[in-house]
Amino acid sequence: MKKFMDENFLLQTPTAERLYATVKDLPIIDWHCHLDPREIAEAQKFSNLTELWLGGDHYKFRVMRACGVDEKYITGNAGDYEKFEKWAATIENCIGSPLYHWTHLELKRIFDCDINLSAKTAKQVWEHCSSILEKGMDVSQIIKKFNVEMICTSDNPLDSLEFHKKIKQSGFGAKVKPTFRPSDLLNIESPNWGEYIAKLSETTGININDYQSLKEAAYNRVEFFHANGCNMADHALDPPVFGEMQEEMFDVLIKQAKAGEIISEKRVAAYKSKIQTDLAEKYKEKGWSMQLHIGAARNVNTAMVELVGTDKGYDCMSDDVYADSLLRLLDSIEKNSGLPRTILFCLNPRDNDLLACIAGSFQGGGQKGKIQFGPGWWFNDHKDGMEKQMIALANNGVLSLFAGMLTDSRSFLSYTRHEYFRRILCNLIGNWVENGEYPADFDKLEEMVKNISYFNAKEYFG
Amino acid sequence: MKKFMDENFLLQTPTAERLYATVKDLPIIDWHCHLDPREIAEAQKFSNLTELWLGGDHYKFRVMRACGVDEKYITGNAGDYEKFEKWAATIENCIGSPLYHWTHLELKRIFDCDINLSAKTAKQVWEHCSSILEKGMDVSQIIKKFNVEMICTSDNPLDSLEFHKKIKQSGFGAKVKPTFRPSDLLNIESPNWGEYIAKLSETTGININDYQSLKEAAYNRVEFFHANGCNMADHALDPPVFGEMQEEMFDVLIKQAKAGEIISEKRVAAYKSKIQTDLAEKYKEKGWSMQLHIGAARNVNTAMVELVGTDKGYDCMSDDVYADSLLRLLDSIEKNSGLPRTILFCLNPRDNDLLACIAGSFQGGGQKGKIQFGPGWWFNDHKDGMEKQMIALANNGVLSLFAGMLTDSRSFLSYTRHEYFRRILCNLIGNWVENGEYPADFDKLEEMVKNISYFNAKEYFG
Amino acid sequence: MKKFMDENFLLQTPTAERLYATVKDLPIIDWHCHLDPREIAEAQKFSNLTELWLGGDHYKFRVMRACGVDEKYITGNAGDYEKFEKWAATIENCIGSPLYHWTHLELKRIFDCDINLSAKTAKQVWEHCSSILEKGMDVSQIIKKFNVEMICTSDNPLDSLEFHKKIKQSGFGAKVKPTFRPSDLLNIESPNWGEYIAKLSETTGININDYQSLKEAAYNRVEFFHANGCNMADHALDPPVFGEMQEEMFDVLIKQAKAGEIISEKRVAAYKSKIQTDLAEKYKEKGWSMQLHIGAARNVNTAMVELVGTDKGYDCMSDDVYADSLLRLLDSIEKNSGLPRTILFCLNPRDNDLLACIAGSFQGGGQKGKIQFGPGWWFNDHKDGMEKQMIALANNGVLSLFAGMLTDSRSFLSYTRHEYFRRILCNLIGNWVENGEYPADFDKLEEMVKNISYFNAKEYFG
Repeated sequence: MKKFMDENFLLQTPTAERLYATVKDLPIIDWHCHLDPREIAEAQKFSNLTELWLGGDHYKFRVMRACGVDEKYITGNAGDYEKFEKWAATIENCIGSPLYHWTHLELKRIFDCDINLSAKTAKQVWEHCSSILEKGMDVSQIIKKFNVEMICTSDNPLDSLEFHKKIKQSGFGAKVKPTFRPSDLLNIESPNWGEYIAKLSETTGININDYQSLKEAAYNRVEFFHANGCNMADHALDPPVFGEMQEEMFDVLIKQAKAGEIISEKRVAAYKSKIQTDLAEKYKEKGWSMQLHIGAARNVNTAMVELVGTDKGYDCMSDDVYADSLLRLLDSIEKNSGLPRTILFCLNPRDNDLLACIAGSFQGGGQKGKIQFGPGWWFNDHKDGMEKQMIALANNGVLSLFAGMLTDSRSFLSYTRHEYFRRILCNLIGNWVENGEYPADFDKLEEMVKNISYFNAKEYFG
Repeated sequence: MKKFMDENFLLQTPTAERLYATVKDLPIIDWHCHLDPREIAEAQKFSNLTELWLGGDHYKFRVMRACGVDEKYITGNAGDYEKFEKWAATIENCIGSPLYHWTHLELKRIFDCDINLSAKTAKQVWEHCSSILEKGMDVSQIIKKFNVEMICTSDNPLDSLEFHKKIKQSGFGAKVKPTFRPSDLLNIESPNWGEYIAKLSETTGININDYQSLKEAAYNRVEFFHANGCNMADHALDPPVFGEMQEEMFDVLIKQAKAGEIISEKRVAAYKSKIQTDLAEKYKEKGWSMQLHIGAARNVNTAMVELVGTDKGYDCMSDDVYADSLLRLLDSIEKNSGLPRTILFCLNPRDNDLLACIAGSFQGGGQKGKIQFGPGWWFNDHKDGMEKQMIALANNGVLSLFAGMLTDSRSFLSYTRHEYFRRILCNLIGNWVENGEYPADFDKLEEMVKNISYFNAKEYFG
Repeated sequence: MKKFMDENFLLQTPTAERLYATVKDLPIIDWHCHLDPREIAEAQKFSNLTELWLGGDHYKFRVMRACGVDEKYITGNAGDYEKFEKWAATIENCIGSPLYHWTHLELKRIFDCDINLSAKTAKQVWEHCSSILEKGMDVSQIIKKFNVEMICTSDNPLDSLEFHKKIKQSGFGAKVKPTFRPSDLLNIESPNWGEYIAKLSETTGININDYQSLKEAAYNRVEFFHANGCNMADHALDPPVFGEMQEEMFDVLIKQAKAGEIISEKRVAAYKSKIQTDLAEKYKEKGWSMQLHIGAARNVNTAMVELVGTDKGYDCMSDDVYADSLLRLLDSIEKNSGLPRTILFCLNPRDNDLLACIAGSFQGGGQKGKIQFGPGWWFNDHKDGMEKQMIALANNGVLSLFAGMLTDSRSFLSYTRHEYFRRILCNLIGNWVENGEYPADFDKLEEMVKNISYFNAKEYFG
C-alpha cells in the first residue's frame, strides 16, 4: 500500500517517477484563470485559511452543501473559524474527489503541513497555518514559491486594464496578461446588450449604429488589449450556434437589439457567427490565440442565485448537441481568414472524443499544434477527467503537442494543480511505456513530458 | 490467477477485503424494486429453477434471443426443464456479462451450489436445486437469508395496497412499503389518460373536471399511500420536459384530454411540469423522497411486443437531450416549495457526469445528501456501470453520502446484487487507498463503506 | 517493464498469452474495407514505403498536419522520400496513438524491420524496406502472408464489378466480394440525385418515373451484385432519420427530386425510411447482411476539401441524437419483412452503450448473433475504443457472438490490425479470467476467442 500523498503520489511505476522528476521544477504557465488582477497589484495578504480557501471557491461550496452544512457557514455571516471547521468536517468525507487532493497538496506545498484535515484536526491545522500566515504571506510569495512564469486573467473588453499596468510597472515576478473575453458583446439576446453597447460606444468614442461601427469598436478594444500585453481571447459558447443572413440585415439587427427588441434565435445565431468570424480574423491578424469554451449552464438554481449571487456553485454542465454548428462556425472562420490558434474545450466529458476529432479536422497551415483540444476543465478537473481528455487526444490527435493544464481558478493556492496534472500525465505515459506500448526512449519521453508540462504552452501563449 | 468467484470475488487488494468484511453482513434496504406484493403476502413457493429464474427476467430473455434460442423456450410454452436447458446453454457464453455473475452468485448463496452452469452441467444443477426447492423454500426464507430489512415496491396510485396491508399484519420479516408511481397520471398524451382519470375519480370520489380537482384527487391518493406506510414517489421522465402555461389554460387542457383530444407537445410539457411541481410540494410536506428515472425507450420492437407482451426484453435506452428541461423542472420545484429529497437516475450512462453535476446544483437546506445521483440502474447494473456511476459521483459530488444500491428486480433471488455492489464499492475504495489517494484511516473508511452499503439508505428512506 | 512491442505486446497476463497463441494464426475475414479491387486485379506492386503508406491514408495526413507538416509533403507534390521523412518525424511524436502501433506492426510483420521509426531512423527504415520492395512485393503476397481468406470491398450499385470478376477468374488467394453501398440512391436531398437516377435507369434499362420503378431498378442491382458474389449491403446513416408518408406521395416525390426540386426534411426522411425498408426486405430475401454506419460528418473543412479533395482527412464524427429514429426504422423493417442480419456501428463512442442496447432489442428468430453491435471503427479503431466497444457489448449483449474486427482501410498493410484486435481481445478476456470473473475453463475460453477472431465472421458473412 502506498502512503497517502507521499513523494510518489499518483506515480505508479518507476518510469512515471523518472519522468516526473524531470518536470516537477519547470515553471508554470497559467494560461487561463480567474485571479483578480487587483489582488495581485495590491499584493493582497491573507489573514487566515478561510479567506484563502473559502472566499469564493464554488467547488468547496457545493460539497459543503451536499454534506448538509447550513448556508450560513458557506456564503453566510458565520465567523471565519466556524466556516473553516465546517469545511474540515466536510473534506474528510470527500474520498475520490479532487478536492481531497487539492486541499492536502495545498496544505503540504504552501504550509508544509502534513496533517490530514478532518473535524478532529481542524484546530491543529488552523493554528499551524495561521502561524505561517501571521508572518505575512502575500500573493507575490506564492507566485514565487510555485515558479509561476505567466498568468492570463479573464477580462471584459471594457476593462481599463489599470491593474495589469500597475503589475507590469511593479516588477512582479510573473508576467500577468489580460485575456479578451467578449461575452457581453456576443450575447445579443441579453436584455443588457443595449446598455453594454452604449458603454462600448462611450469607451471607444465610436458611435455604434450599424454592424460596421460595432465591429470597429470591438476591433478598437482588441487593439487596446493588444497594446497592454494581451494575446488571447476567450469565447463562451453556451452552446455553439451557427447561422447566416444577408449582409444588410445585420445593420437592422443592431438597431433592433439596441432598441431592446426581441431577436429571433435564427438572427441571434447569424449575429454570433458573423461577429465571431470577424473577431477571429482580427485575432489572427494580431497573432492571438482563441479559446472556445463550450457547454456551461449557468445560474440553474435561480432561488439560490437570487439569495447568494452568481458564481457561488449554482452553475452546471449542459448536454446540447452542437457538432454541426461548431463545425460550420470553424469552417466559416477558416474560409474567411484562416483560423487563429484555437483551443476547444468541452464541459460535458461525453464530448471529449468529438472535440479531439473536430480539432483534428482543422489542423494545418504548417503550424504545429495549431488547434488544441483543451484540458479537463472545471467539472473535469480531476484525475479521471484529465486521463480521459489525454487519452481522447492521444487516440485522435497528437498528445505530445498538447499545451497542457490551466487552473481556471480564483485562488492563488491552485498552482498545486499543475503538480497534480504533471503527476497524472507522467503516470499515464509511464504506464504506456511500462506496458510496452511505446519504446523506453527516455530522451524522447522526457522531451514530450517537458513540452506538455511547460514548453508547448510557452510557445503557444508566449 | 484468482479462482472464479472465490471468497474474495472482485476484491483485488487487502484493503478491499478488509473493508468488505465490515459490510458483508449488514442488512439490505431494497429501496426500489418490482417485486409483487401479492407473492410476498401469499408466501409464494417455487417448484423449480425455471419458475424462479425465467418467469419474468427480461435480462435473461435478451441474451437467450441473442444466442439464437427460439422464443418457444423463452416466453413460449416449452416445458420448464427444456427452458432451463436453453438458459444453461446460453449463460456459459456470457463472459463479461453481469448475468454470468448474478447467476452464479444466486446458485452459491441460495442453493450452496458451486457448479458452473453450462449445457453440460444443466442437469446436475437442476437436480441440486430441485432437491432444495422440494424441501420448500418460500419468499420469507429468502428474505431472512439475505437479512433484508426493507422492501419498497412500485405501485399504481389506484392500487388498494391490500397486499401491503396483509404483509404488515402477517409479521413478515422485512418492512414492505409501497412506492407511489404516478406514470398514468402524468402521461396526458396517452390515449388511455381519460379512462385513468375516470378511475381516479371513482377511487377518490372526487369529480375531476378541472386542474384543481385533479390535484386534489392526486393528493388524496398520496395521503392514502402515506397512511399505508409509503414515503416515496417514483416518476419516469422519458424524457424530461418543461413548459409553462397560463393558469386558466390548465382547466381547458384537462377537459380536452378527458375528451380524448390530441394535446400539443407544448401543452403536454406544461401539464407535466405543473403536476410534478404540485406533487413534489405534497411529497415535501409529507417528508417523502422522490425518484426521477430518466431515459427509457419502451416497447421499441412492436412486432414482438404484440406477440409476447410488455416487459419481455423489448425496452431500450434513449439518447434524448434533456439537461435544460430537467434543470428548469428542478428549479421550478425548488422555487415553489423547495425540492423534497430527490434521486436522479439516467439510463444512458453518457449522462453520468451530467446528473452528478445537476444533483450538485440543488443540494442545500442543511440536509445531508439531499439530492442523490442514483446508482447504476438496469442497463448499467454491472461492474463497469457501477464503477462509472460512483466515480462520476466522487468527482463531482460526495460519494460517502451515496444511498447505495437498489435491485430494480422482479426476482427474489436478486438480493445477491447487494453483495455484488458492496464488493465493487469496497474494491473501488480499496484501490484508491492502496494507491495513496486517501489515507489508510480504517475507522473513517469503514464508516464510509458501511454508510454507503446500508446506513445512508436507512436514514434516507427510513 | 515490457519491451516495446515484443512477442507479448498488449498481453498482460499468462492467460492472455495462452489465448492469443490459439488465435494468432487463424485466417482473416476482412468484412469491411475500402481496398480498390482494381489494385487487386492488377496485382499492384509498390515501389516504396510512401506509395504504400502515404498514398491515401487520411489518418496519417491528420497527424502530420497537427505536427505542422506543410501540405506539400502530405497531399502535395513533394518527392516520395521527402514525404516519408516528414512522416518519420511525425510518428515519433504520436505516443498513445494507434498510428504508432500500426506503423510498427506493419514494419515488423511485412518487412521484418525492428527499427523504431523516427526522424533519426528514417533513412535506415526507408532503405531496409526499399530493398525488400525492390525484390517485388505485390498485393497477392501480402494477402498470403496474412492468411486473408475473404475481402469485402465497398461498391457503388452502378459498378460493373469487372474487377471482382477478373479477380475471381484469376485464382487470387482470397475471396474478394463486393458490398452494395447505395448512398447515392438514398441521398435524395443531394443535388446529384437526379443525375444518379438517370444513370441507374441507363444501367438497368428501367425507366424510373415513380417509386415502384425506382425500387425495381434498385432490386435489379441487388440481383446483379448477388450474382457476382455479393451478400452484404452497407448504408451510411448520417444521421438516421425516420418518417412516414402516404403511399401515393412517394411517386410525386420521385418526380420532384428528379426535377431537382428542393425536398423537405420530412419527405427526405419518409423516402429514406421507405427505400431502406424495401431494400432490407430484398436483402433478407437474398440472405444478405446489412451494415448501418452511423455518425460521420463529412467534408467539414470545406476550404481544404476544395484544395485537396475528399477523403483526405477532413471528415469528422457528429453528435446527433438519433435513438428514436433508428429504433423506428429498425422496428419498421422488422414489422415489414423481419430484419436481415444487421450490424450497427456508431462513430461517436458516446453511443456505444446505446447501440449495444438497441441491438439487444431486435435479436430473435432463433438466429444466433443476428443483430451485431459492430466493432470500434475509424476514430475508435484503437485499444481504448475496441475495449470500450467490447465491454459495452459484454455488459448488454453477448460478446462471444461478436463477429469481430474489420479494417475499414484503403491500405493492404492494414491486415496487422487484426493482430492488434486479437491481442486486445485476448488481453481483455485474460484479465477477466485472471481476476476471477470467469472460470479458467480453457476449452470454452479458446472457443470464444477463436469464434470472435474468425469463426463468427465466417458464419455471419460466409
